[in-house]
Amino acid sequence: MLFHVTMDVNIPRDLSADDRAEILAREKTYSQDLQRQGTWRHIWRIAGHYANVSIFDVRDNAELHDILSGLPLFPFMDIKVTPLLRHPSAIRDDDR
Amino acid sequence: MLFHVTMDVNIPRDLSADDRAEILAREKTYSQDLQRQGTWRHIWRIAGHYANVSIFDVRDNAELHDILSGLPLFPFMDIKVTPLLRHPSAIRDDDR
Amino acid sequence: MLFHVTMDVNIPRDLSADDRAEILAREKTYSQDLQRQGTWRHIWRIAGHYANVSIFDVRDNAELHDILSGLPLFPFMDIKVTPLLRHPSAIRDDDR
Amino acid sequence: MLFHVTMDVNIPRDLSADDRAEILAREKTYSQDLQRQGTWRHIWRIAGHYANVSIFDVRDNAELHDILSGLPLFPFMDIKVTPLLRHPSAIRDDDR
Amino acid sequence: MLFHVTMDVNIPRDLSADDRAEILAREKTYSQDLQRQGTWRHIWRIAGHYANVSIFDVRDNAELHDILSGLPLFPFMDIKVTPLLRHPSAIRDDDR
Amino acid sequence: MLFHVTMDVNIPRDLSADDRAEILAREKTYSQDLQRQGTWRHIWRIAGHYANVSIFDVRDNAELHDILSGLPLFPFMDIKVTPLLRHPSAIRDDDR
Amino acid sequence: MLFHVTMDVNIPRDLSADDRAEILAREKTYSQDLQRQGTWRHIWRIAGHYANVSIFDVRDNAELHDILSGLPLFPFMDIKVTPLLRHPSAIRDDDR
Amino acid sequence: MLFHVTMDVNIPRDLSADDRAEILAREKTYSQDLQRQGTWRHIWRIAGHYANVSIFDVRDNAELHDILSGLPLFPFMDIKVTPLLRHPSAIRDDDR
Amino acid sequence: MLFHVTMDVNIPRDLSADDRAEILAREKTYSQDLQRQGTWRHIWRIAGHYANVSIFDVRDNAELHDILSGLPLFPFMDIKVTPLLRHPSAIRDDDR
Amino acid sequence: MLFHVTMDVNIPRDLSADDRAEILAREKTYSQDLQRQGTWRHIWRIAGHYANVSIFDVRDNAELHDILSGLPLFPFMDIKVTPLLRHPSAIRDDDR
Repeated sequence: MLFHVTMDVNIPRDLSADDRAEILAREKTYSQDLQRQGTWRHIWRIAGHYANVSIFDVRDNAELHDILSGLPLFPFMDIKVTPLLRHPSAIRDDDR
Repeated sequence: MLFHVTMDVNIPRDLSADDRAEILAREKTYSQDLQRQGTWRHIWRIAGHYANVSIFDVRDNAELHDILSGLPLFPFMDIKVTPLLRHPSAIRDDDR
Repeated sequence: MLFHVTMDVNIPRDLSADDRAEILAREKTYSQDLQRQGTWRHIWRIAGHYANVSIFDVRDNAELHDILSGLPLFPFMDIKVTPLLRHPSAIRDDDR
Repeated sequence: MLFHVTMDVNIPRDLSADDRAEILAREKTYSQDLQRQGTWRHIWRIAGHYANVSIFDVRDNAELHDILSGLPLFPFMDIKVTPLLRHPSAIRDDDR
Repeated sequence: MLFHVTMDVNIPRDLSADDRAEILAREKTYSQDLQRQGTWRHIWRIAGHYANVSIFDVRDNAELHDILSGLPLFPFMDIKVTPLLRHPSAIRDDDR
Repeated sequence: MLFHVTMDVNIPRDLSADDRAEILAREKTYSQDLQRQGTWRHIWRIAGHYANVSIFDVRDNAELHDILSGLPLFPFMDIKVTPLLRHPSAIRDDDR
Repeated sequence: MLFHVTMDVNIPRDLSADDRAEILAREKTYSQDLQRQGTWRHIWRIAGHYANVSIFDVRDNAELHDILSGLPLFPFMDIKVTPLLRHPSAIRDDDR
Repeated sequence: MLFHVTMDVNIPRDLSADDRAEILAREKTYSQDLQRQGTWRHIWRIAGHYANVSIFDVRDNAELHDILSGLPLFPFMDIKVTPLLRHPSAIRDDDR
Repeated sequence: MLFHVTMDVNIPRDLSADDRAEILAREKTYSQDLQRQGTWRHIWRIAGHYANVSIFDVRDNAELHDILSGLPLFPFMDIKVTPLLRHPSAIRDDDR
Repeated sequence: MLFHVTMDVNIPRDLSADDRAEILAREKTYSQDLQRQGTWRHIWRIAGHYANVSIFDVRDNAELHDILSGLPLFPFMDIKVTPLLRHPSAIRDDDR
């Protein structure tokens, strides 16, 4: 089941450079693990913004919430969730 | 080059059933041709809405505009365009 | 899996009284059938508005979309969908 | 009498871990007591957000306000209140 | 129990002058009856707008909805409902 | 001459408990003095919010501004002013 | 007493050219009469818009409402009213 | 050439009383100098707000920007600029 | 003096194909004449929209308004005007 | 390929005067280098705002993002990106 998620990142200026680097490294690992498992199906940067558009493929709303609230950057993100489904005109098999 | 496009469809009630069916058939063909060519990379329905989220892979802004303004449903759509690029954490080869 | 849905109804003035009565009767039957099946878990009227707040219990986003887009009043509704999940403080068994 | 309430939580970063834990524990107890009394009829988490949708069953506006303004997290919440009533199509007895 | 209600009126231009006069007369009677009963506690015009701010004193949400949805001008109104209660600094007895 | 005023209060967290108590006591006295003089005609709490809806009866815009800008909580309030007048359907003498 | 008023004009396309010309002529006379009396103190066009910004000098809210609701173009205007007063830094005598 | 400017002032709480007094004194002098020169044609307080509506008469956009960005309170203001011109119904000579 | 103008075009569906073609031809001529004179300095299409972003170089607000309100498509456009000036970092001579 | 970019600058008050001067100097150099290369085609100040409107001519979305996210002021800017293309009525050769 697919969800469209946009994430706007807003890291506070008073976070130390070390904390910032550490949190960004954990975020990258976290995201790439989920990408490898096929759960985080797509991730794109939005031009000109510290933000991304992502597509998640999850069992249900609860799994989606666990993933999003577990993001290392979650406290610093503005998140928007949109449930998706296969479009009747889609021809690509995995755009279910 | 990737673009994120949302399309909200609002077909006027005074369009005849025939005109409506004809325009929808043309829209489907138009979309599936572009999907087959790889230009219209993804299309998903938004749950509960007569709307879709799409990803286009085009040469430039002009090609994107030609495609969107050529949509049979273009006069009845509310369109939002967001330029995308490869995310630094992406691992999937074609999410460029 | 639960979804929170608000529906604002806006029936055009030029619909005949008969068409209006017929569509409202179909809407009521449609809603009550789904309530009896346990899919449409709750429905409340919003005070002062021709609108409702509903909770749906569905298998996935696709089933939710089928139900909503099949509503007889769908063409005249402004719909907002919010995915829900069990709250960690909930004590009621069926608020999953 | 039913009210629909959404609560968005925004705990300031400069709250100590202890204060945060203590306030969250009190919030949970407060919510579960009211759930047991039947006043806080439903509570659901919104996927991807530190927020909930709740249904309250109270005597009047004053009781609702006492409950909401007494929430341990009240100073850190963005609250939206919508008065509800039984929907004419509802079949479930307690959706009054 | 008090509710604050704003009503913005938007009568369609294609309503005949007779229909318009008749609906406005019925609206006035309806409002004044409820004012005499003490249910419609206050009504003020908003300067420069075809709109009013009103205070209703009702038993519950359901009575408020019955009153508002029964307004002759209801189909042509944009209505906003806000539940009120006695303010801790109020000194006037009937501002409960 | 009547004005409708909404006041949303947002006291900063870094105000000391003493300063907070002192400012709230002054606000209460200030409001009740004006209520006794008949200038602050009504004040109601908005359910679920640290906010009020008030009706002022003043000579002119300048007097209204003097009163509002003199509120002890003025620096911490978000204020919205709407000029009112007697509604043509009003039957209550003092809703002028 | 001064009020700041913005008026956005939106004349429906189905008004006949004669009706349009007649209503615009009446609007101009109405405005110039009030300007000569000193009630409509200023009127300026907003560049690029069929809209104006005006300053009215009236006795009270009721007189302002009578003037605005009497505008021949009132049914086709979107009006916004802001109460003004003399600024403490003003040096011009009639900017009271 | 006339411009309509609204200025909302938001002085940070951590500014010392002396800095605040000094900046306000400079703002007043700055404004009154420009009023005397005829450049700052009007200034009015908005009732209930720490804000003003002003009319400037300048040579061009650059002069307007120099004046606004030179305001002592500029860093603490939210400014909105609207270009104006003589209204075809205006009768007052200097409302050009 | 430069102005930034965005124009969103919304031609009503009930305009005949001939009227539409005629008005579009006049709009093109009108725009190209002004481009040749150097008044309409730039015009770009916004990708995915029937809209443009333009830069005008005019004597004053009045000339800008004459040009915009004279556009054949003016009644069908949503226009937004922003006054510009030379940026202190600009190196291009004619970006004054 | 052209992009329209607006940048609103909001430098935090707690940045030291030296840091501020240094970052502004780097921003100016950065912008002028790109202007000289023809990539940053236009830059204008918005009257009354610490903001600019710019036109960029880049190879693709990725290059635009690299430029914008590399701006010394990027962490303090609110940026809005709009993809442009040649307008069918444009006569100027380089407005492609």
